[in-house]
Amino acid sequence: MLSFLPNIRIIMINTTLPANIGSAARAMHTMGLSDLVVVSPKLPIDENSYANSAGGACILDNARIVPTLRDAICDCSLIFASSARSRHLPRPTIAPTQSTAIMAQFLAGNPTARIGILFGREDRGLTNDELALADYHIQIPANPVYPVLNVASSVQVIASTIYAHFADTEPNRTVMPITIRTDWDLPAITHAQKDSLQNNITDLMVALNLARDDELKDLPSRLSRLVSRLQLDQKEYAILQALTAKMIALTKKSQ
Amino acid sequence: MLSFLPNIRIIMINTTLPANIGSAARAMHTMGLSDLVVVSPKLPIDENSYANSAGGACILDNARIVPTLRDAICDCSLIFASSARSRHLPRPTIAPTQSTAIMAQFLAGNPTARIGILFGREDRGLTNDELALADYHIQIPANPVYPVLNVASSVQVIASTIYAHFADTEPNRTVMPITIRTDWDLPAITHAQKDSLQNNITDLMVALNLARDDELKDLPSRLSRLVSRLQLDQKEYAILQALTAKMIALTKKSQ
Repeated sequence: MLSFLPNIRIIMINTTLPANIGSAARAMHTMGLSDLVVVSPKLPIDENSYANSAGGACILDNARIVPTLRDAICDCSLIFASSARSRHLPRPTIAPTQSTAIMAQFLAGNPTARIGILFGREDRGLTNDELALADYHIQIPANPVYPVLNVASSVQVIASTIYAHFADTEPNRTVMPITIRTDWDLPAITHAQKDSLQNNITDLMVALNLARDDELKDLPSRLSRLVSRLQLDQKEYAILQALTAKMIALTKKSQ
Repeated sequence: MLSFLPNIRIIMINTTLPANIGSAARAMHTMGLSDLVVVSPKLPIDENSYANSAGGACILDNARIVPTLRDAICDCSLIFASSARSRHLPRPTIAPTQSTAIMAQFLAGNPTARIGILFGREDRGLTNDELALADYHIQIPANPVYPVLNVASSVQVIASTIYAHFADTEPNRTVMPITIRTDWDLPAITHAQKDSLQNNITDLMVALNLARDDELKDLPSRLSRLVSRLQLDQKEYAILQALTAKMIALTKKSQ
């Protein structure tokens, strides 16, 4: 499915800041997208764009600048618009995860088709006329009090969703090796408590001569990982703390 | 579930650029997160931070600067680290969507617990010692050739995943009103073809005196939405084009 990434074009409209074009290029490159078209930017791609593109400079090198949105989408068969705005003649409005499912379905049936995703101006987004050119409007779920993502951040979120969806169907995915405890009846311990328990265990091992010098370097991180897996609550913590403290005292007394 | 957002703390470590702290604050605010702790930044929060925070200035006003990572996490019960690096003593490595499922489960059992998410330096990420403090490592699926997201973009992607997960369990979610066609045997039409068909239909309606002046303004976007729903392939397009062209010719001839 990752072989479909070249079919997806990012289209930025009337960008004000060249830095944002660069940040969008970086976001694209981290997610394997490479086709960037900028429609009539207020300022051209410049050194600020390149500074912000980091490892994605190649995307800027190959970006096309075109005068109108129609030039950018004329060869696209399916068009999405990223939008936080309501508009008077609504199109189907979907979340990023829904959009990637649609892209995947569409490309499975149309492996050579091109898909365009429109991103609007920093200050005013897309106009109603521009929104009307899209088959679907993608709305990133966001805080209703302030749903205004930076344009490069919107590119990052949508590109990440695309990559995750397309990479997820590849064979070698990561699996989660441990599960989280769900039967809490008492509060979980805090990091400071976890630290204190680890220190007690380390002290005990040193007191018992169980920790050799060459092991001491690794010991804190190994204990930390072990205690992390235990997912202790307050009572369990109190028990283990009392136990280790008592054993340390006994060990010291017997020596 | 959105009521859990205040339990989640974003922790930035040794940030170099004050602008990135501001961009992270904006990203947090768009996703309803408000608890920001910055550990020993190379430069303090300044006017560049505020310029980049846009509507998220309130997050910067309330951000805490602390000298060590331990100060930032001492009251946290579950700790995640955002990481693109491999490390010598691995913790469970999960995708953002898996991390939010764990957060939700954890907070359901521990409604007053605090969760910390660590984000590393712009240039070098998190050290092995810092990674060892986390219960889980979150890895954003990314282009293996260049998996290096900007730190504020990483905050945006993970915060967006959290918001989408927590908002998704609320009652009023958007549903997708139309489905995508999957039975393609011929290529889908391009935007330019779609445009051409719409123009033909408009011409025909004008020729037939079917389009009143007060309707002409809305007509292009209504036709565009209608043709978008049709999801035409090349043969269907050829049929409709021939049909409309013929009817236009006939209409003109008969007038």
